[in-house]
Amino acid sequence: MATSASRLKILRLERPELHGADVFRHTIRCMLEHHDVTVRVRYAETDQMGVVYHSNYLIWFEIGRVELMRELGFDYKLMEINDDTFIVVADVHCRYHLPARYDELLTVRTRILETKSRTLKFGYEIFRQSDGKLLATGHTIHVACDRAGRVKQFPEKYKTAFLKMSPPIIERSRA
Amino acid sequence: MATSASRLKILRLERPELHGADVFRHTIRCMLEHHDVTVRVRYAETDQMGVVYHSNYLIWFEIGRVELMRELGFDYKLMEINDDTFIVVADVHCRYHLPARYDELLTVRTRILETKSRTLKFGYEIFRQSDGKLLATGHTIHVACDRAGRVKQFPEKYKTAFLKMSPPIIERSRA
Amino acid sequence: MATSASRLKILRLERPELHGADVFRHTIRCMLEHHDVTVRVRYAETDQMGVVYHSNYLIWFEIGRVELMRELGFDYKLMEINDDTFIVVADVHCRYHLPARYDELLTVRTRILETKSRTLKFGYEIFRQSDGKLLATGHTIHVACDRAGRVKQFPEKYKTAFLKMSPPIIERSRA
Amino acid sequence: MATSASRLKILRLERPELHGADVFRHTIRCMLEHHDVTVRVRYAETDQMGVVYHSNYLIWFEIGRVELMRELGFDYKLMEINDDTFIVVADVHCRYHLPARYDELLTVRTRILETKSRTLKFGYEIFRQSDGKLLATGHTIHVACDRAGRVKQFPEKYKTAFLKMSPPIIERSRA
Repeated sequence: MATSASRLKILRLERPELHGADVFRHTIRCMLEHHDVTVRVRYAETDQMGVVYHSNYLIWFEIGRVELMRELGFDYKLMEINDDTFIVVADVHCRYHLPARYDELLTVRTRILETKSRTLKFGYEIFRQSDGKLLATGHTIHVACDRAGRVKQFPEKYKTAFLKMSPPIIERSRA
Repeated sequence: MATSASRLKILRLERPELHGADVFRHTIRCMLEHHDVTVRVRYAETDQMGVVYHSNYLIWFEIGRVELMRELGFDYKLMEINDDTFIVVADVHCRYHLPARYDELLTVRTRILETKSRTLKFGYEIFRQSDGKLLATGHTIHVACDRAGRVKQFPEKYKTAFLKMSPPIIERSRA
Repeated sequence: MATSASRLKILRLERPELHGADVFRHTIRCMLEHHDVTVRVRYAETDQMGVVYHSNYLIWFEIGRVELMRELGFDYKLMEINDDTFIVVADVHCRYHLPARYDELLTVRTRILETKSRTLKFGYEIFRQSDGKLLATGHTIHVACDRAGRVKQFPEKYKTAFLKMSPPIIERSRA
Repeated sequence: MATSASRLKILRLERPELHGADVFRHTIRCMLEHHDVTVRVRYAETDQMGVVYHSNYLIWFEIGRVELMRELGFDYKLMEINDDTFIVVADVHCRYHLPARYDELLTVRTRILETKSRTLKFGYEIFRQSDGKLLATGHTIHVACDRAGRVKQFPEKYKTAFLKMSPPIIERSRA
């Protein structure tokens, strides 16, 4: 897996014109790059506490990353069918700040936090559209696997697309 | 639905050797044959009305028929893996009499209502264990399919097992 | 509850200008009135058969009727909060014609089939948008209840709105 | 996370009467105290990858902590109804080691990791019963709230019960 150093090298290989402040600007741009998708809370997603049951946020995260991928130009569905590449969930974290409620319109904001040869890390923020309040934050880590569940490398076209939206590692490691 | 009287007539057509008390005993046996399994209501299954969200009853029906099959001596899992036979849901009906609530222990009572070459019909009753009240009734109709979704006949061993628990309805044999 | 006769009377009271062919035209118009909403199949909704697990169609039905109500000018959410009126599911039926698959865009087409003082019946059709194929049909019957679960009459404003989209009973009984 | 050594030091500060083998025995008891409950994987919980969809593990975690509480002598249901105390999920983490599959019997092993005045932290391990393999690990952090969602202290009886199963961490007493 790529170290911080090799990731910077990758950035330089990919964008040889960048150096000094440009690298910094590029990094900032990457930090800001995200994809927003709207979901409306379903009745089935609430529980008797009158708020959304917490496991549903993970399903919204899934919608967030799938739509981010579509924005990048490919269907996750075809990634499975045509390229025998499944992005299996290996790790998930969610922090709940405020409860989501029935019928609310939410924005699921998704970023790629890290792209490696075999793994991918997404970050999520969920906002309530009516007042812009942040309801939840989280991340998921995924491993590329084939249909049989064996770990594999991401096909090049995906890795390239993911890297374009990934922040250069060197910045990340300072955070 | 056939009334008791018409059901008896059907039975006599199908099993002419039965008469008098035998008919009665056979009928009673069929009416009584069912499988009971307990489920406890999960928090995730409730909604903001404070009761179980209605689609979850269909999942309990699934548990009911899978456990009935296990009682008959085979795993539905292996039916898919070893015999390439999937029992695809073609029709579902549920009537809700009283709401199920969080943490309640329920009995899912399952019967086979009809076995044909390619289809299977299950009947369900869901009871609250604390007071025996009937909460819901329903049925599902299934079609035997292979992995590719093509309709097929049930392998003989399954059909034989299903028939043992099916009430004697002559229409069955026409399928 | 209103009989067929009283429903026709209701139609005549509501639209006294209608008679003869007009009643017929009105009826036809009602039969056609429906509301369409798009849902995209989520990964979480699939099962190991590679298709959508059947209980999820009931959740899509819910989306269909809630959006139909929004089209009629009111939020189901506020119906619960402001008018203490919950439309509890009493009966559900679904017939599955063709499987829905991951990531497909579906149209949920919803109609009001019947409006009574205390009950409401919705009809649903689910289409695959890519080829227009009909995947499932179904209905749900609902009872108006207050927060405590006691059956009540629909507040007038809702009943009036529902009736505008309901077919006159006399036509329905001929179907 | 405190190392074993620092945990021991903390224990000595909190329970100065313990020393030598007692400290060891106490520590071991705390490390071992957990509650096991069995769940069987439902068909509805699988996805088209042929394994359990990852958000369902959070629902199993819920079953784990509710059954642990029942073992401690109280129903979570009554905690809500009688004591107006809801344990709202504030944070969840799950790491997926091996996939769970349809119909497998799993053990959900739950521990209380930390009890404070207003918060509670549970730890979970999910094992496959057929071979004892560890499928997933995780934790949840909960905040005690009243029905209106205001943070409150746990009623004494609950706190006492939780503390009995909590490992002795001095930070606990500062909350």
